[in-house]
Amino acid sequence: MTSLGVWLIGARGAVSLCSLVGALALRKGLVEPTGLVSALPFFKDLDFVPWDSLVFGGWDIQEVPLKDMAWHLAEGEGLFPSRLLARLEKDLEGIEENLMPGVLGEQGVVRAGQVRSALCQLSRHLEEFRKRHKVDRLLVINVASTIGPPLPPCLESLSELEKWLFKDREIPTSIFYAYVALKQGAAYINFTPSPASEFPALCELAEREKVPHGGKDGKTGETLVKTVLAPMFQMRHLRVLSWVGYNILGNQDGRSLEQPEGKQAKISTKSQVLESLLSPPPHTHKVGIDYVPSLGDWKTAWDFIHFEGFLGTKMTFQFIWQGADSILAAPLVLDLIRFTEHAWRLGSFGLLSHLAPFFKQPLGENVPLDFFSQNQLLLQYYRRCYHENHCGHPSREKATHP
Amino acid sequence: MTSLGVWLIGARGAVSLCSLVGALALRKGLVEPTGLVSALPFFKDLDFVPWDSLVFGGWDIQEVPLKDMAWHLAEGEGLFPSRLLARLEKDLEGIEENLMPGVLGEQGVVRAGQVRSALCQLSRHLEEFRKRHKVDRLLVINVASTIGPPLPPCLESLSELEKWLFKDREIPTSIFYAYVALKQGAAYINFTPSPASEFPALCELAEREKVPHGGKDGKTGETLVKTVLAPMFQMRHLRVLSWVGYNILGNQDGRSLEQPEGKQAKISTKSQVLESLLSPPPHTHKVGIDYVPSLGDWKTAWDFIHFEGFLGTKMTFQFIWQGADSILAAPLVLDLIRFTEHAWRLGSFGLLSHLAPFFKQPLGENVPLDFFSQNQLLLQYYRRCYHENHCGHPSREKATHP
Amino acid sequence: MTSLGVWLIGARGAVSLCSLVGALALRKGLVEPTGLVSALPFFKDLDFVPWDSLVFGGWDIQEVPLKDMAWHLAEGEGLFPSRLLARLEKDLEGIEENLMPGVLGEQGVVRAGQVRSALCQLSRHLEEFRKRHKVDRLLVINVASTIGPPLPPCLESLSELEKWLFKDREIPTSIFYAYVALKQGAAYINFTPSPASEFPALCELAEREKVPHGGKDGKTGETLVKTVLAPMFQMRHLRVLSWVGYNILGNQDGRSLEQPEGKQAKISTKSQVLESLLSPPPHTHKVGIDYVPSLGDWKTAWDFIHFEGFLGTKMTFQFIWQGADSILAAPLVLDLIRFTEHAWRLGSFGLLSHLAPFFKQPLGENVPLDFFSQNQLLLQYYRRCYHENHCGHPSREKATHP
Amino acid sequence: MTSLGVWLIGARGAVSLCSLVGALALRKGLVEPTGLVSALPFFKDLDFVPWDSLVFGGWDIQEVPLKDMAWHLAEGEGLFPSRLLARLEKDLEGIEENLMPGVLGEQGVVRAGQVRSALCQLSRHLEEFRKRHKVDRLLVINVASTIGPPLPPCLESLSELEKWLFKDREIPTSIFYAYVALKQGAAYINFTPSPASEFPALCELAEREKVPHGGKDGKTGETLVKTVLAPMFQMRHLRVLSWVGYNILGNQDGRSLEQPEGKQAKISTKSQVLESLLSPPPHTHKVGIDYVPSLGDWKTAWDFIHFEGFLGTKMTFQFIWQGADSILAAPLVLDLIRFTEHAWRLGSFGLLSHLAPFFKQPLGENVPLDFFSQNQLLLQYYRRCYHENHCGHPSREKATHP
Repeated sequence: MTSLGVWLIGARGAVSLCSLVGALALRKGLVEPTGLVSALPFFKDLDFVPWDSLVFGGWDIQEVPLKDMAWHLAEGEGLFPSRLLARLEKDLEGIEENLMPGVLGEQGVVRAGQVRSALCQLSRHLEEFRKRHKVDRLLVINVASTIGPPLPPCLESLSELEKWLFKDREIPTSIFYAYVALKQGAAYINFTPSPASEFPALCELAEREKVPHGGKDGKTGETLVKTVLAPMFQMRHLRVLSWVGYNILGNQDGRSLEQPEGKQAKISTKSQVLESLLSPPPHTHKVGIDYVPSLGDWKTAWDFIHFEGFLGTKMTFQFIWQGADSILAAPLVLDLIRFTEHAWRLGSFGLLSHLAPFFKQPLGENVPLDFFSQNQLLLQYYRRCYHENHCGHPSREKATHP
Repeated sequence: MTSLGVWLIGARGAVSLCSLVGALALRKGLVEPTGLVSALPFFKDLDFVPWDSLVFGGWDIQEVPLKDMAWHLAEGEGLFPSRLLARLEKDLEGIEENLMPGVLGEQGVVRAGQVRSALCQLSRHLEEFRKRHKVDRLLVINVASTIGPPLPPCLESLSELEKWLFKDREIPTSIFYAYVALKQGAAYINFTPSPASEFPALCELAEREKVPHGGKDGKTGETLVKTVLAPMFQMRHLRVLSWVGYNILGNQDGRSLEQPEGKQAKISTKSQVLESLLSPPPHTHKVGIDYVPSLGDWKTAWDFIHFEGFLGTKMTFQFIWQGADSILAAPLVLDLIRFTEHAWRLGSFGLLSHLAPFFKQPLGENVPLDFFSQNQLLLQYYRRCYHENHCGHPSREKATHP
Repeated sequence: MTSLGVWLIGARGAVSLCSLVGALALRKGLVEPTGLVSALPFFKDLDFVPWDSLVFGGWDIQEVPLKDMAWHLAEGEGLFPSRLLARLEKDLEGIEENLMPGVLGEQGVVRAGQVRSALCQLSRHLEEFRKRHKVDRLLVINVASTIGPPLPPCLESLSELEKWLFKDREIPTSIFYAYVALKQGAAYINFTPSPASEFPALCELAEREKVPHGGKDGKTGETLVKTVLAPMFQMRHLRVLSWVGYNILGNQDGRSLEQPEGKQAKISTKSQVLESLLSPPPHTHKVGIDYVPSLGDWKTAWDFIHFEGFLGTKMTFQFIWQGADSILAAPLVLDLIRFTEHAWRLGSFGLLSHLAPFFKQPLGENVPLDFFSQNQLLLQYYRRCYHENHCGHPSREKATHP
Repeated sequence: MTSLGVWLIGARGAVSLCSLVGALALRKGLVEPTGLVSALPFFKDLDFVPWDSLVFGGWDIQEVPLKDMAWHLAEGEGLFPSRLLARLEKDLEGIEENLMPGVLGEQGVVRAGQVRSALCQLSRHLEEFRKRHKVDRLLVINVASTIGPPLPPCLESLSELEKWLFKDREIPTSIFYAYVALKQGAAYINFTPSPASEFPALCELAEREKVPHGGKDGKTGETLVKTVLAPMFQMRHLRVLSWVGYNILGNQDGRSLEQPEGKQAKISTKSQVLESLLSPPPHTHKVGIDYVPSLGDWKTAWDFIHFEGFLGTKMTFQFIWQGADSILAAPLVLDLIRFTEHAWRLGSFGLLSHLAPFFKQPLGENVPLDFFSQNQLLLQYYRRCYHENHCGHPSREKATHP
């Protein structure tokens, strides 16, 4: 059977830990696959890579042991039961040896003069991991904190990018990591709002290497809800006048969003959604993010929607979302790993636009932003695939929904 | 050009008044068609019956003048501007002469012994209206308060129903009205949760008379949101543990829902939605409705959704909907008039299941309950119709959304 | 030093367990006294009975071991950290031997014919506990589930009550427990909405035995907020038109409130508050309680307040309270133990009306219902006491607040 | 009988208009005094200046006629009924002639070189108003938009301030207006967060002129609630970890708060409240204000309070306030006029610290911030006054509350 190396950028962070704990628990059959799209009945005949064929490694610039971080998430944050963790501790320790130091990107860039050596070092990490574990395929996924540095002018073509790197000039770390991955023939997924594989230079590289890639910014909470509610207002011809949303959260992601650049990158991917889904766009659209340490990984979002109905009457809709961010993200990370590997095995490469429902800012031309159309993309990919007999017959395919 | 008689059951109520004021204002070009689905760009090439070809009449058991009710809604409830009403007062007065007394259905039934005479009387109302205004087609729409009486055993076939009526036996008023309408060759739409044309006896009658019918219970607010959010949880494989919703409202609808039977009928159509959309269904699903007179026509709903995500972590989603019920209903009433007349003119009759997105409890076999699939039904009906050149070419048909 | 026996009615329930775990943790200095009113700076010079002079016992009709229940609350409900519990397990086991079976009150009453024997048995429990642990004083506190049976006619005087009991006639269990306690010379506190020491018969007994008593129904959450907000509206002369509140909860308390009588008792103590605090009272005042098992001990309350301001303008205020019921109750239970014992030691007996801030339905004549006036009662009791040199000097007494 | 001139700074704004419409409607007995503290039963024996003895005038830098603004507030914003306004239109027009242009303070300051001439001009406005209407006393009240310019160094003593003005140097308009008022022997009230009479220079002037003054920043909505809820948490010894509040509003006040200085001034008075009321103060305390034009005068505030209870358990409390800002402010403006004039007539002058409950940032030494203690100050002022027989006997004085 095929095996898959999964290399996490930000491997010691909360999203990574929840994904690791989840994958290990699923491997041992200790938990239900709640929250995993790939475990819906619609997909039940697909031969996803088995949980025990996944081998995990990754980079991180922090040094906190996986085990310590996991206990913090279990006991301090209440993200999963201590009893569960107790049974997975050994496995987590086993992953520890596959973790390597990332490039210390102050202000989110690899400094000029350090690029070429970093390139050698990181490439060697991937090669060694691949060899040591004899994995058939390698997938790199970015789950690190958001960075939002100014972009260099070298992203329009692969040759320009490679010239730039050869000259050892400053480059955003998130783009650098994506380059290293694709160059090594690894699939690449960007779960963050940081800039990465969406630029022509990197798309070209993925096509050349015949590897799939996708992104960006996992759609876990408030934005997910937006992409469901905005189409409702639109289809009812109700005019959204104002949509203001405030997010408060206390995890590392919240802290890094205190930095103006990171905040701007995040707010930008969160904001575009409404402008596209609502026509005319709302007069006022605000997205606030504030760091409230006492909340830990628990994010609360309050959205206030002011809309006009028939005869000019103004009404309001409000929602309050209270979720554990990393726990919402983790199953999507695992889904992306499974769906990407599976499509790759089926022969797909380049931008996987059918992964749209997983992202706040799905990459690709004319990719819809409303969640239900996005799901149609995913389901149609597999309907076609069932039809062409690539992947078995769907057992109980229903009209529209899984 | 074709003309359409529109006969409102509950013609002096708030939903009727908002519909009438709206239709009159649209006729004079005084308002935007905000809230009208039929005014979305997707439908812009359809030749709907013009606003000035609609002639309104109806039944009501109350006697408050239309004008007084309209001023109450404008000034007391703030549902539309007084200035708008001032310009439509005359037109409203003109409708007054088309309003007839309805059957006084205590406890929601026409009493045994009074059925046959009522049948004669109501039929004559429709005939006279039709003749006086020389309307080409007649459409009867139920916008009265909810009733929920025990059902008689005569609804399984048309012959049984007619035998029952001939014997002058007790019959629920809402079913009685539907019978009168269809028998007269009028289209019939049930905008309420009361029992009506969904029973075999009446479906048979509609088929025989070659008239369209549809229902039931206009989907205006909290339930609309449910049919959008529940599929989101389902597609993300998030397990809804409990969904409790409390509705408070102060209008006539709220008062009639104080009656246990009406309340039960309403809660029933509101409840089925989740059981169908969520699999497994939630452990706990409660729908509360309480009468809070100070709110007038303004309904507030608070829904609390408790769901389980990955690794068993429990999270919550809450929403608060604050809307003017009758203002939300009115454009849907006008949409149903336009879409039903148009389909009828195209040759459709019997149950119009493509009207599903307008109803809490859409009639028909295997009609989906999630809002987006329901919209697909409506759009596909017109895509096919465009394709077969029955109704012109859609100008800028987009992938999925109108 | 003085020692105090604390006898809990409902000793194996969640409120009891949180109180026990808390008292044991405070004794060992493992936690901060957050949530304890008696630990506010204002009271810092009072010589409360030390935590290690409290001896716990009690009745329960259930048999689940304290330890099992405690682990469920720690791991299943997340009410306190497992690590904390691990250090207190032994102490909890030590209490186990002091727990006795309560009277099995089906439908909340001791059945006719079983009263006299139950009286003997329960009295013996208290006597033996008192002797075995050589406690100076004994305090019985009701933290059992709510019961709301019909009241017998014997509560107007002690002699009538005793005649009734002697005749072995049916008696509500909550009243029976209170009688047993007071008769034994124990102080009695009613933390529940069940009927107990507020009747003349039992007040007379407490006076005769020179023991303090108080109640009823601990004010932990939604009602606490009501007694703070209602005076605000009143003082601003804003007219509350409607106040509707819905409580959802999943613990044993929630289950017992599914029983119509219990629900009525609870709703009744919750409702009286507004009628007294608002003048004129609101047109509409509703309190809903629904059992939502997935919430466990976590109660959510949504309150919607519709009020009229200047020139007749209507506005709204809503609040959402999400709290762990037993964790909110536990420190108040400990406060009541400390304050009652202390007042008793100072020579107070009979109804302790200065305990008003702790109760939804404070006993006593003309006891205020607004929280700030209630606090004045408590603070004034101790100001007087400081002044009369009974209990030391308050160190940094501020103008009004502790 | 005594007559009172009331001079409004910002006379053409929404707060002013609601106050004027209200005063005129009260004079004619067209409305109930809902929202007026001075109309509570407690104060019913006080001989407040009669509504028809108030003469209104004022400054504004805008030129929109009072009538137009009033119609906008009635029809566009729904703040009061059109029918009410129709009966007061004439009276509003009568006030028009008493309105004078204010000093056009770009960036909130009277420019150097223009101070002395402005002083002459504004003083003349007041003198002429006083003479023309033969008012016994004059009260100036600031209800203009917030300004928050840098403060000059001349505010420490009256002589320094007057030297500065004599040198014709730049001065914040709000301070300038207060100076003009007090210098003319008028009472002065600051209903805004702009800097004004709180500085030693102006306090000295008020004492010298024997006129009363007070402020600052009317406590109408979210902050009012904070000063009620924070003491509740404090008295229950619940530890507030984080308190974040977001205000959205669409009126002129909202627009001027878009200016960073104005926003800072406002947020500052809103923030201090919690730091004083909670000990220890919350880890995180944020106050956001955003301009959402579609809301008009309707402000919505969402506050999220994260608190720790017993055994370290974290819980949340949220509230949503939806109110019409100017309608909430107007009765307080009228109350301040009545209470200030009354106290002045009784012989009080200088800072009126018993007006504390009306302000977000009450002036005076050791003035409490919690709402209930503030009300005690107001009530005690009148209890003393009743006692000393200055102002009749309170009829039904209750224990604590009015």
